[in-house]
Amino acid sequence: MLMKAVILLSGGVDSTTLIYQALADGCQPYAISFDYGQRHRRELQSALAVANAAGVFEHQIVRFDLRLWGGSALTDNSIDVPKERPFDTIAQNIPVTYVPARNTIFLSFALGYAESIYAERIYIGVNALDYSGYPDCRPDYIQAMQKVFRLGTKQGVEGNPIHIYTPLINLRKTEIIQLGNKLSVPWELTWSCYNGGNLACGVCDSCRLRRSAFTELGLVDPITYAQ
Amino acid sequence: MLMKAVILLSGGVDSTTLIYQALADGCQPYAISFDYGQRHRRELQSALAVANAAGVFEHQIVRFDLRLWGGSALTDNSIDVPKERPFDTIAQNIPVTYVPARNTIFLSFALGYAESIYAERIYIGVNALDYSGYPDCRPDYIQAMQKVFRLGTKQGVEGNPIHIYTPLINLRKTEIIQLGNKLSVPWELTWSCYNGGNLACGVCDSCRLRRSAFTELGLVDPITYAQ
Repeated sequence: MLMKAVILLSGGVDSTTLIYQALADGCQPYAISFDYGQRHRRELQSALAVANAAGVFEHQIVRFDLRLWGGSALTDNSIDVPKERPFDTIAQNIPVTYVPARNTIFLSFALGYAESIYAERIYIGVNALDYSGYPDCRPDYIQAMQKVFRLGTKQGVEGNPIHIYTPLINLRKTEIIQLGNKLSVPWELTWSCYNGGNLACGVCDSCRLRRSAFTELGLVDPITYAQ
Repeated sequence: MLMKAVILLSGGVDSTTLIYQALADGCQPYAISFDYGQRHRRELQSALAVANAAGVFEHQIVRFDLRLWGGSALTDNSIDVPKERPFDTIAQNIPVTYVPARNTIFLSFALGYAESIYAERIYIGVNALDYSGYPDCRPDYIQAMQKVFRLGTKQGVEGNPIHIYTPLINLRKTEIIQLGNKLSVPWELTWSCYNGGNLACGVCDSCRLRRSAFTELGLVDPITYAQ
């Protein structure tokens, strides 16, 4: 029998590579995406297209509204998304695109979903290198969540805790794209931009990291940029 | 300046006592409640009434739907809420009213809210004695979440982690009611029943634990029961 795995899918480069990795690992994928009032809600179209292309068994879209309290450029329209920042600045500080407790909220829902379907694994595409500014993308944080999974669930206390898989955590963006190419990831379906336009803006941190990685590899990024 | 505290408020005996305890501790209370597709959504009326009576600074009601995947008698109408079970059975097993990952989801939202308002504390009314069947009510689980709070947030990595307070964790239900009396908790506003009727059913685990505690103390429970 295939192992059931819940995959956190935003529709970006990392989570799309992740779902193909889960398939390559022999898992039956169950995708979960979040409609949380993000500025770049457009990413959900990509999540749906990717889930469809990857042939997931089920795709849950959980709705809640983090604009209730804001506190991030991604959930508060009064805070601008930074553009054209030097890459070394992005990595040094916690950026204004940090959403308080976002990965903890996402992983908690994934945990509830995973337990309800008796899944063995949760895949999350966190990355501690190219976005090391985010505290909730680091290995020690993931280990702490793993302990929560073990102690705070029925499956955990019964000796079958759900395991968190983070295959991208130590990869650079270029390495993730190389892995994705090996797995035949459909890049044309993905969405990375933090802004909510019809075309990717090309100038936010997320667009620029993506573009520069494709360029560094001498590859063509198949999506269209506004500038 | 008063310490800001986020209080998880369901409107029941425990969380209502909790909010009055936070006031007694010198905190400025910010309440958070959850409209998650629970069978006993009626409890939100009580949460609103209690928040109002306690004079909270703000009350956030976060909406999402755990009926998406069910897995609990509280979020799946096809699973009956148990009634008239012996109390020793309640404590021994994880009951069907366990909602996968519920407290982890609740604490995650409380964490995001707390960080957005620069709160110092989160109060949660978990109790490891009278409901020891729930894994996400135990001290080791709370400690694991505290570590997540420390490692996974901006406030945490900057050296000001938000602290989880669980003043009721080692109290029996009778002791919680005694504490509530000392704090002048308005019991008539509270709601404990797992069923969604206009009157508390009187026969689910939650009603019975509450009633028997009031009876044991020789006190009158001011709410009306259907039977």
